[in-house]
Amino acid sequence: MRDDAGLPKDAPLAALRRGALVESVHRGRLAVCDPGGNVLEAVGDPEAYIYARSAAKPFQALPLVLTGTAEALGLTDRELAVACASHNAEEPHLAAVRSILEKAGLTEDDLQSGAHPPLYEPEADKLIRKGEEPRPIHSNCSGKHAGMLAVCVHEGYEPATYRDPGHPLQRRILTLMAEVCGLREDEVLVAGDNCGVPAFALPLRSFATGLARVATGNALTDELATAALRIRDAMREHPFMVAGTGRLDTELMDSTDLLVKGGAEAVLAAGSPEGWGMALKISDGALRAVRPAALAVLGGMGVEVPEAVASVRGLHGETVGEIEPLIQASGWTT
Amino acid sequence: MRDDAGLPKDAPLAALRRGALVESVHRGRLAVCDPGGNVLEAVGDPEAYIYARSAAKPFQALPLVLTGTAEALGLTDRELAVACASHNAEEPHLAAVRSILEKAGLTEDDLQSGAHPPLYEPEADKLIRKGEEPRPIHSNCSGKHAGMLAVCVHEGYEPATYRDPGHPLQRRILTLMAEVCGLREDEVLVAGDNCGVPAFALPLRSFATGLARVATGNALTDELATAALRIRDAMREHPFMVAGTGRLDTELMDSTDLLVKGGAEAVLAAGSPEGWGMALKISDGALRAVRPAALAVLGGMGVEVPEAVASVRGLHGETVGEIEPLIQASGWTT
Repeated sequence: MRDDAGLPKDAPLAALRRGALVESVHRGRLAVCDPGGNVLEAVGDPEAYIYARSAAKPFQALPLVLTGTAEALGLTDRELAVACASHNAEEPHLAAVRSILEKAGLTEDDLQSGAHPPLYEPEADKLIRKGEEPRPIHSNCSGKHAGMLAVCVHEGYEPATYRDPGHPLQRRILTLMAEVCGLREDEVLVAGDNCGVPAFALPLRSFATGLARVATGNALTDELATAALRIRDAMREHPFMVAGTGRLDTELMDSTDLLVKGGAEAVLAAGSPEGWGMALKISDGALRAVRPAALAVLGGMGVEVPEAVASVRGLHGETVGEIEPLIQASGWTT
Repeated sequence: MRDDAGLPKDAPLAALRRGALVESVHRGRLAVCDPGGNVLEAVGDPEAYIYARSAAKPFQALPLVLTGTAEALGLTDRELAVACASHNAEEPHLAAVRSILEKAGLTEDDLQSGAHPPLYEPEADKLIRKGEEPRPIHSNCSGKHAGMLAVCVHEGYEPATYRDPGHPLQRRILTLMAEVCGLREDEVLVAGDNCGVPAFALPLRSFATGLARVATGNALTDELATAALRIRDAMREHPFMVAGTGRLDTELMDSTDLLVKGGAEAVLAAGSPEGWGMALKISDGALRAVRPAALAVLGGMGVEVPEAVASVRGLHGETVGEIEPLIQASGWTT
């Protein structure tokens, strides 16, 4: 199932409609799987790879629990949630990241997340008004990095090189990623994420299966199941810590019983306690298409979701168009 | 030539490559035509519609010349260029817009372009640091609106309602858009642009043909040809005024003999004095795909263009991927 350029086959999932016409269209692909790896629904080839990007963060946080780091340092569920976050750099996020570092005997200076302006615009504007440059703690990944550093301290790993794909922590994460998703390690492809740690690529089906397992604890060893459910519960109990104001992950975890985690380049991962996981990739990487496409898919899985069609406003406040899903509640499999 | 969702057929034109895989892909469609309306090259169906958005600005500026407004008010070529611009709100842009308004006996308060932060980030940051809200003059369209107001003043049209599709100026622009592109008026579809004036949709082929005509003056009445060449020359002589620092339109007009104008939702229009016009639409509306796709197409037309492949940098300055064209220099027609 490849298209004319040898790329994985996809289908139109969302559109920007202006006046009488579709102005822009977003294609994508997805898989919904049970913990046994069976494909329940799919658009495109479920065996084709995607980069999970930040949607892998719940998996990358597993060593925090598995190694006993979280227990030894007394990490709270809020802190575990921010370790799985692509956060907005709102005050509660920064406070939780600082607290993880402090409990590990570290400081902001140890973070190697790289710096970018806070995702939440009012926080970004605050920094500009204060004449301050963004620091690594403002990076949406700073919780993940703080968690990685905490594991290094607890396990006696060298913290200065924690981003290296050959570092024992990163090798351990790769092993876990493969195991939870039912793959051999060499079936998980590794590249560089923008924040400098490994980015994992894996088949949609495997990723969706991993999400079904993390959301239920099914088809995992007891030890892994316990760790996965601790991560799941921390995220579910603190949706704000996982993203923040105005963000889809937070909105969906606030309003449904799903585990939800987005990733850069328009990835959305979700897991249901009812026994399925979903991995969605908008082919062009456009964030604006994730919401309508995901809501249509989740609605089709029987989840009660908010309205998927959203108005697009012009500069005078008038409606100039709509962003809407292009898939129906059922019959997606292509 | 429609795809499985009844949308115009397109093809992969650019990709973000990370590690061993294409992470995200941008599809699009395009037509290259001569002033006679013959299709020289195409990807997708050249008869399928696109919204020209701001790529229509050179056409929307024609009344400034045709009505004698530019001459009567003594508008400079820099001012004509900013009337065709999607500008960055850098100081020279604001000064030129203010000058048009002043020459027409108007002020910033008459602009109905709506407000958004300057496209050029350092200017946007300056406003934030000063604690100022963006004003209509900072809108990338403020030159177009100033030009429209100037025509109203010169022609005795009511300026307060100049954005209305039924306003005599907007009706005149629609007539011109159709005539230059070789269409009947009812073949040009009208919707609302984000800045509150009409947005035009027309077939790729017609738009590319119109660009070939504006770039050459061919296949137009003498009066229209004179006006089109005046607009063309003003834009060509002042590429910075049409966009600004770091912008593709400016870069390409600085380095080639093309007329170039981009539009929102990833439209790029170009016209060559050698006798062809190109209209390109990235289907998903992603700006980042316009440059590689356009450079590949223009290179294929024999234009000497800059390197089309661009590195994508991570937060540590390292290369994490590349944005690259997916079309070759020839043989696009699909």
